[in-house]
Amino acid sequence: MNVLIVYAHPEPRSFGRALLERSVQTLQSCGHQVVVSDLYEMDFQPVATGGDFTERRFPDALQYDREQKQSSQRHTFVQDIQTEIDKLQACDLLILQFPLWWFSVPSIMKGWIDRVFVNGTVYGAGGMRFDNGGLKGRKAMLAFTTGCFPEMMAPDGLLGQRDVILWHLQHGTFGYAGLEVLQPFVGFSIQFIDDAQRHAQLDAYEARLRGIEHEPVMPSHPLADFGPDWRLKPDVEPRTAGHRRNSTKA
Amino acid sequence: MNVLIVYAHPEPRSFGRALLERSVQTLQSCGHQVVVSDLYEMDFQPVATGGDFTERRFPDALQYDREQKQSSQRHTFVQDIQTEIDKLQACDLLILQFPLWWFSVPSIMKGWIDRVFVNGTVYGAGGMRFDNGGLKGRKAMLAFTTGCFPEMMAPDGLLGQRDVILWHLQHGTFGYAGLEVLQPFVGFSIQFIDDAQRHAQLDAYEARLRGIEHEPVMPSHPLADFGPDWRLKPDVEPRTAGHRRNSTKA
Repeated sequence: MNVLIVYAHPEPRSFGRALLERSVQTLQSCGHQVVVSDLYEMDFQPVATGGDFTERRFPDALQYDREQKQSSQRHTFVQDIQTEIDKLQACDLLILQFPLWWFSVPSIMKGWIDRVFVNGTVYGAGGMRFDNGGLKGRKAMLAFTTGCFPEMMAPDGLLGQRDVILWHLQHGTFGYAGLEVLQPFVGFSIQFIDDAQRHAQLDAYEARLRGIEHEPVMPSHPLADFGPDWRLKPDVEPRTAGHRRNSTKA
Repeated sequence: MNVLIVYAHPEPRSFGRALLERSVQTLQSCGHQVVVSDLYEMDFQPVATGGDFTERRFPDALQYDREQKQSSQRHTFVQDIQTEIDKLQACDLLILQFPLWWFSVPSIMKGWIDRVFVNGTVYGAGGMRFDNGGLKGRKAMLAFTTGCFPEMMAPDGLLGQRDVILWHLQHGTFGYAGLEVLQPFVGFSIQFIDDAQRHAQLDAYEARLRGIEHEPVMPSHPLADFGPDWRLKPDVEPRTAGHRRNSTKA
């Protein structure tokens, strides 16, 4: 497999960095090709602006997604975006690795998503999303560290259930783009564990990555499960963290 | 009330800007004080780095949240962060207004959260979170525009239920910081509606804001609803989009 790891951490001596290095070594030793986009090291510019396009279809007022669509057709993205799009399209597996900040990715990684998951390539007109998304045929997973304890992400945990916390990333970003989603790797309570436990986390991540291409993907609903009203057809049982039967439905 | 509106949109002639202007006019006409942080106009720097502190407790390796804690005690944030913290602490109501990008806020606004919702002030040691969070006594709401249709955010909608999509913001950010959460204002399907419908949205937003101080807040669970295992006590019924009874619980 070609694996793209997009990594964001402000500290090169962090435990996150150790996880990154272990993942690269492991995947390479299994024969995979690995490309890393280290966003802090790259000084990646995360703010979407009109300057992201070398020509503009609507120069008077920026419509960011419509400019993305034209730039997808005419290859008129600025170079830092096009480089990342090329890496994304070349991969079979995308891993986003980061410390969980405010239940999400750090700003620099959100900017990578905003600027690189472009209209016309990753999603777009003609129903290009979910199982018909521009990145279909590829897989993706989140790998993140957090100070919280596993019980806090239980269905009845303090922070809410894990896959609701991650819904905007696993469904709203990966799923929307057509990526099939693998279970996340979570490095829990890293401020509160000792070196032996940190090594155990590194080993656990390595063990997962050694079998990663054989892992089942998480459940999702194909577009065909939804009716013309954009809602699950009556005979389809909800099977994700974010869908449930609307009790008020006629 | 003192109202802080944090606003992110790359285009000054957008419908989002019209919503912002209407909200400022409306709130002022009701006698409220309004402060706007227009992140694109401010050229707000969204990437969290070690340079966010004028002195460092751990200069060898950045531990961002621990540096925030010390800077909260010693007032050693760089000026752009301290200015925003001051605005935040002075407000009674926080409104985040933005176009919904990838089920979340634009990168520049995520960076405002990463850098301004600081450890030691907004949340922190000693259980300073949720109903004991640093911003308790204040309210917050999301106001966003999106291309999607309302049905897509129904409980059984294509994108998943609205409050699961927004969980990381409404629960994981607002709620965690101690803010009580008002229902979001959503400007739906703005690419697909005509001028009359856009004016109707502006009027609807104005109507909501005119009564905003009397609106009930969304349901949430206080810390006292959770046991020492960080999970809902057996006699507490889940009442949010992100909590459910764990069927495997003993």
